[in-house]
Amino acid sequence: MTWWTTDETHDPARSSWVASANGHHDFPIQNLPFGVFSAKGGAPRIGVAIGDMILDLRALAQTGTLEVAAAAVANDITLNALLALPQAEQRALRYHLSAILSDEAHRAAVEPLLHNAGDCTLHLPARIGDYTDFYVGIHHANNVGKQFRPDNPLLPNYKYVPIGYHGRASSIRPSGVPVRRPVGQRKPPEADTPLFGPTARLDYELELGVWIGNGNALGDPVAIADAAQHIAGFCLLNDWSARDFQAWEYQPLGPFLAKNFQSTISPWVITSHAMAPFRTAQPPRPEGDPAPLPYLSSEDDQAHGALSITLEAHLLTQRMRDAGEAPFRLSTGPATNMYWTVNQIVTHHASNGCNLTAGDLLGTGTISAPTREGFGSLLELTTGGKEPITLPNGETRSFVEDGDEIILQARATAPGAVSIGLGECRAQVLPAR
Amino acid sequence: MTWWTTDETHDPARSSWVASANGHHDFPIQNLPFGVFSAKGGAPRIGVAIGDMILDLRALAQTGTLEVAAAAVANDITLNALLALPQAEQRALRYHLSAILSDEAHRAAVEPLLHNAGDCTLHLPARIGDYTDFYVGIHHANNVGKQFRPDNPLLPNYKYVPIGYHGRASSIRPSGVPVRRPVGQRKPPEADTPLFGPTARLDYELELGVWIGNGNALGDPVAIADAAQHIAGFCLLNDWSARDFQAWEYQPLGPFLAKNFQSTISPWVITSHAMAPFRTAQPPRPEGDPAPLPYLSSEDDQAHGALSITLEAHLLTQRMRDAGEAPFRLSTGPATNMYWTVNQIVTHHASNGCNLTAGDLLGTGTISAPTREGFGSLLELTTGGKEPITLPNGETRSFVEDGDEIILQARATAPGAVSIGLGECRAQVLPAR
Repeated sequence: MTWWTTDETHDPARSSWVASANGHHDFPIQNLPFGVFSAKGGAPRIGVAIGDMILDLRALAQTGTLEVAAAAVANDITLNALLALPQAEQRALRYHLSAILSDEAHRAAVEPLLHNAGDCTLHLPARIGDYTDFYVGIHHANNVGKQFRPDNPLLPNYKYVPIGYHGRASSIRPSGVPVRRPVGQRKPPEADTPLFGPTARLDYELELGVWIGNGNALGDPVAIADAAQHIAGFCLLNDWSARDFQAWEYQPLGPFLAKNFQSTISPWVITSHAMAPFRTAQPPRPEGDPAPLPYLSSEDDQAHGALSITLEAHLLTQRMRDAGEAPFRLSTGPATNMYWTVNQIVTHHASNGCNLTAGDLLGTGTISAPTREGFGSLLELTTGGKEPITLPNGETRSFVEDGDEIILQARATAPGAVSIGLGECRAQVLPAR
Repeated sequence: MTWWTTDETHDPARSSWVASANGHHDFPIQNLPFGVFSAKGGAPRIGVAIGDMILDLRALAQTGTLEVAAAAVANDITLNALLALPQAEQRALRYHLSAILSDEAHRAAVEPLLHNAGDCTLHLPARIGDYTDFYVGIHHANNVGKQFRPDNPLLPNYKYVPIGYHGRASSIRPSGVPVRRPVGQRKPPEADTPLFGPTARLDYELELGVWIGNGNALGDPVAIADAAQHIAGFCLLNDWSARDFQAWEYQPLGPFLAKNFQSTISPWVITSHAMAPFRTAQPPRPEGDPAPLPYLSSEDDQAHGALSITLEAHLLTQRMRDAGEAPFRLSTGPATNMYWTVNQIVTHHASNGCNLTAGDLLGTGTISAPTREGFGSLLELTTGGKEPITLPNGETRSFVEDGDEIILQARATAPGAVSIGLGECRAQVLPAR
C-alpha cells in the first residue's frame, strides 16, 4: 500500500454517529487526527478528534476492545511512540477508529468516552526532540531575499538545496498559548550602534509542519522512495519572527533570537493516511530551472508528493475583538507553492546520515503565493513595513501589534474527497515585559 | 556563596584514598565530575569520576549514607535532574563526595562501589533537549571569515552580538563513538552544478561545551548577574564540519548538513563548582572595540567570567596507530580567546525569553589563538587546505582522512590550585557508506 492510496476510511459516503463531524468540519470521520488533551482538571492523555468531540484513546484501550498493536501506546502522555509505530499498525488503528465512530452499533459503548473539545485543553502532541525549519516557499524566499539582499534575492544554492536550519524545540507551544513580544538587539539604519528593547517589527510566518514518525539510525540516509514512510503527519506552524533582530543578527550563521522566543503549532497531528486523497503532482519547475539531483528525484514523488492544501492567515486585533468583529483574512494560497516536496525535505535532511526521531518537527518555511493575496507574512504583505495594510475597521498594520491575534487555518481539498481541516493555530501577542 | 568562591573541596592539601586520583590526573579529588556509565553488561547509571575509578552513585545512595537532597536523583539514568538541582544541593553532594573519597574512614564502605573506568562504557551524560552552538572564538571567526568572505571577515554585528545558532541534538555522541564521513552536496568553484558525494573537506572544531542546569521559564530572561547560576558544568566538544558542504549550503540560513551529521563530546560534566578556582578575568577588549551593551555587562563577569583552561587538539592517523606512535598535537591555546564569556552567552540566549532547560548543551564555537599554534580547526591550520601540515611520520593532512582519530583534551590551571582535566573527547572517522 503506497502513501497516496486511499481506502474505505476515505470513503465520502462514510459518516459518523457523532453528528458534528458530518457536513463541513475540520475533523470529519475521514480525518481522525491524533492529539494530546486534558479534560477539566485531568491529566494529559491521547485523543482523537471527531467533529466537536475528542475520543479518549486511553479510555478506549481500557475497554479492552482496541485490538490493535497501537493499544500498547494508548496510555502514553505524548504521541511519540504512536507516531513511531510501523505505518501498517497506525493504519490498523485508523481502520478501527473509523469503524467504531461510523458504525452505530458501537455508539453505546464509545459515546461515554467522548469529551467536548471546547471543554478540553490541547497540549503539544509530542515531545519534540529536534525542530528544523526549511525555506521551501520559493515566492517567500524571493520576496524576503529582495528585502535583505536587493541585489541577490535568490542565492545560487536555492534550486539545488532544500535550504533549512535548526530551530528551537523548547519554545514551541500549542495553539492558544499567548506569545510575549521579545526584546533584543536591533540596529536601525540611522543608528551608529544597536539598540536593545522590544522588537518593533514582530511578524508571523504561515507554514506547514511535518511530524516525523519512523526515525532513521545515525549514519543511515533515507532514500527518496522511502521518505513518505518516515512522515507521520502534518500541522500548521506559525514561526513568529522579530524582523529587526533578524536583519541584525542573521549573518553569518542564520536566524537565532529573532525566531526562538516562541513558535506556535496547531495541536492535532493530521496523519499521512488522512492526507492520502490530497496528494497531488508537484508543479513542474519553471523553464530553465535545474532538475533535482538524483538523490532527490523520484517519479512517485513528482506525481504525488505535493499537498492540495489551501492555507490562510487571519488577524484579530484588540479593537476588532472588543467590537465582536470576525478576524480579517490576511492571505490565502495553496501549499503547492513549495519548491520542494515534504519527501524531498526529509530525504535531504537525512542525506548526510543525520538521524531523525519520532516526534521531530520540520517546518516547511513560509508558503507564499506569487501574488500579494497569498503572501504568508507581514514582511511581504507590507513590503517590509513600507506599505501598511488597512483593515476593514480602519486600523492599519505594518507589523503585529500587542493584543493582535494571528490565526492560521488550512483545508485539504480534492475532487471526490471529503475535505479535511488542519485545526487552528492561533496565538495572541502580549506586550513586552 | 558566589560562583567563583573556592572552599575546602578545592583545598590543594586534600587527597583521596583512591591512589590514582593523586598526582597529575584529569580527575583528582578536587574535580569530581558527574557522568553516566555502564559497567560490563550493566544498565546505565550515574557515576562520579575519581582518578582511574568511577564511583557508582546509585549504589552509594542505596547504602543509605548519601544524606543529601541529591540522593533522590541518584537512581536516574541521565543527569538532567541532578543538573537541575539548586546549586546549594549540588554543592552539598560535592561536599559529601569529597569527604567520603578523601577520608580513609569511609574507604571500607565506599571502595566496593568503585568500578575501573577502563572497564566501563561512558554514555551521553544528559538527555540533550536543545543544542546551541556559538561563535565566540574571535580569532577563529576572523580566520574563517577571511576564507568565506575575504572582503568582510568579521561582520559588523560580531562585537555586539554573541553570534550563535541552533544545532542538532539527536546526533551528539559521547567520546569514543566513531563518526561516519558524511555525503552531501558541494560545489567546487570550477563545477557548473553541485556534486553529491562524500565530503572532501572533513574538519574538526575544538570547542568548550556548557551544560545548562537551572532553566528559565519561557518569556523570562536571565540577568547577567544570575547567569552563572544556570550553568551546571563544562565539557569538550568537537563540532565535526564538512567544509565543502558548508560553503555551498550556509547562505542565507546558516550551517545545516555540514554540521549535523555528528558532534562528539567528552562524557564527564566538569561542574561549575569544580571550575571555581579557574575563574579569571575576561581579557580587556582591544582598543576601539565597543563595550558590551548593558544587558551583557557585569563587573563580576568581567573580573571572574573567563576560564583559565588550556585546550589541545591531537591527531592519530591509521599509520601512526599501526606503528604504535603517540598522537600528534595539532594545536594548543587558552580558552581566554573567547570574545564573550559563558555567562554572556547564557544571558544573550535567554534575553528574548527563550527558555533554557536542564541538560541543554551550548557550544562556545571554535576557540583559536591569534597564531597558528593555537588554531582550533584544520581549515585554519592548513589555510583552507592550501597549506597542508606535515606530521612527524611524513604524512600530510589538508583535512581529516578516513581512519584518523581526533582527540581533544583540556586542563584548567591556576596558581595555588590543583589542576583538573576535562576528560577526553575523541572519535575516529569511518569511510563514507
